[in-house]
Amino acid sequence: MPRYKCVVSYDGYNYYGFQIQNDLPTIELALTKAFRDLLNLEVKIYPSGRTDRFVHAVGQVFHVDIPNNITPIGLLKGLNSYLPADIHIMDCTLVDKDFHARFSAIKKEYRYYINVKEYNPLTLRYMPYYSDLNLEAMQEALKLLIGKHDFKGFASAQIDQRKSTIKTIYSADLIEHESYLEFRFIGSGFLKYQIRRMLGIVVEVGKKHFLPNKIQEILDSKDPSDSKYILDGCGLYLYKVYYE
Amino acid sequence: MPRYKCVVSYDGYNYYGFQIQNDLPTIELALTKAFRDLLNLEVKIYPSGRTDRFVHAVGQVFHVDIPNNITPIGLLKGLNSYLPADIHIMDCTLVDKDFHARFSAIKKEYRYYINVKEYNPLTLRYMPYYSDLNLEAMQEALKLLIGKHDFKGFASAQIDQRKSTIKTIYSADLIEHESYLEFRFIGSGFLKYQIRRMLGIVVEVGKKHFLPNKIQEILDSKDPSDSKYILDGCGLYLYKVYYE
Repeated sequence: MPRYKCVVSYDGYNYYGFQIQNDLPTIELALTKAFRDLLNLEVKIYPSGRTDRFVHAVGQVFHVDIPNNITPIGLLKGLNSYLPADIHIMDCTLVDKDFHARFSAIKKEYRYYINVKEYNPLTLRYMPYYSDLNLEAMQEALKLLIGKHDFKGFASAQIDQRKSTIKTIYSADLIEHESYLEFRFIGSGFLKYQIRRMLGIVVEVGKKHFLPNKIQEILDSKDPSDSKYILDGCGLYLYKVYYE
Repeated sequence: MPRYKCVVSYDGYNYYGFQIQNDLPTIELALTKAFRDLLNLEVKIYPSGRTDRFVHAVGQVFHVDIPNNITPIGLLKGLNSYLPADIHIMDCTLVDKDFHARFSAIKKEYRYYINVKEYNPLTLRYMPYYSDLNLEAMQEALKLLIGKHDFKGFASAQIDQRKSTIKTIYSADLIEHESYLEFRFIGSGFLKYQIRRMLGIVVEVGKKHFLPNKIQEILDSKDPSDSKYILDGCGLYLYKVYYE
């Protein structure tokens, strides 16, 4: 069976995350329905990873195996004709049998946006609003996240205890735009809630509630109850999944 | 009774326009409820004009007369605490009795955004997607709209026939951004659907389906059936209402 790699972009605000949860609106459910409508097939979708409720994607990746000999461009156009307007296949290619959306991924990039100008009802689905943040302190805190660390203190307390919480963050950048802040994280992979918990502390540092070294303390304590300032999902974007 | 001028911004995507229509979600209904919740009063809201279904506002203006002696900042904060997150009072000031949100307005500015890069599920609520538009031809078409004209050919066929359809457009600009086009219209006032109908023709000109002079033909014909290419409301923003 040919294997297809698809890049999908979605507005996560109307969805309960990626993974199917019975009949709740989820990205996986919408994709599965589109495959069924197009090909009259039940396909298993293998994503690079899940995204949580409200979280968006610019470049989420999944793979599927399909018995039909549909062309990649035909699959792309066909799926898009059935998908709701807020989920869109951006790219589709044939890949080798040894490609796996999750296990072949070598890096992931997430971005997070914060509106810092004034409360704006027109952007709130895409960037939460925080005011009076000290950027220098936030930059300092971000630097402490870079490198190979045990991020257990920044993970959801409900994660599978058998799985490693050691990950590498290659870069953690803060870019200042006229009315908003853009955070870019590139890492080997991220734990559930990790970015929203890390940024929750970074924002608290920006508000001068903590010193930048709070990051180091949580890396050391490995206690998730220290990082309970979880930022909203709607500011987070799975921007890109990198493969060899 | 003191009169208050309020500037309100809203994401129109979830609303059936400004004006109350029984129990349908509308901006006016939400504002009226917020006044009731805050002041236990039924107030009459006078907007600068209506906006249609899906149309957004950065700076819609309305006035209200309130018997209480609430401070403008108190009114702003109080209303915002009751309003849904996608409607927000941006400014509130006390004004003279002779101020009227609609009749004192001297100019209005509308903006319209079109995504021209690639279909993007993350921006579709705010800018429709059109590709392969010829900007030079569109600029030429826009120029023909500037000035004092009878815009009957660009108005909804259902408008009140007793009202004048003669309006002045002071400027009609097209600004090219990296991934989107921004249209800015400043005029004495605009008829129902006028901007979306004018831009519908401008986009058809951009697609080379019409020559730029089609604008002049419709100004001359005064026949709304010539301008039936009405762009989506969700790309339109009431940007600013100008007063003396």
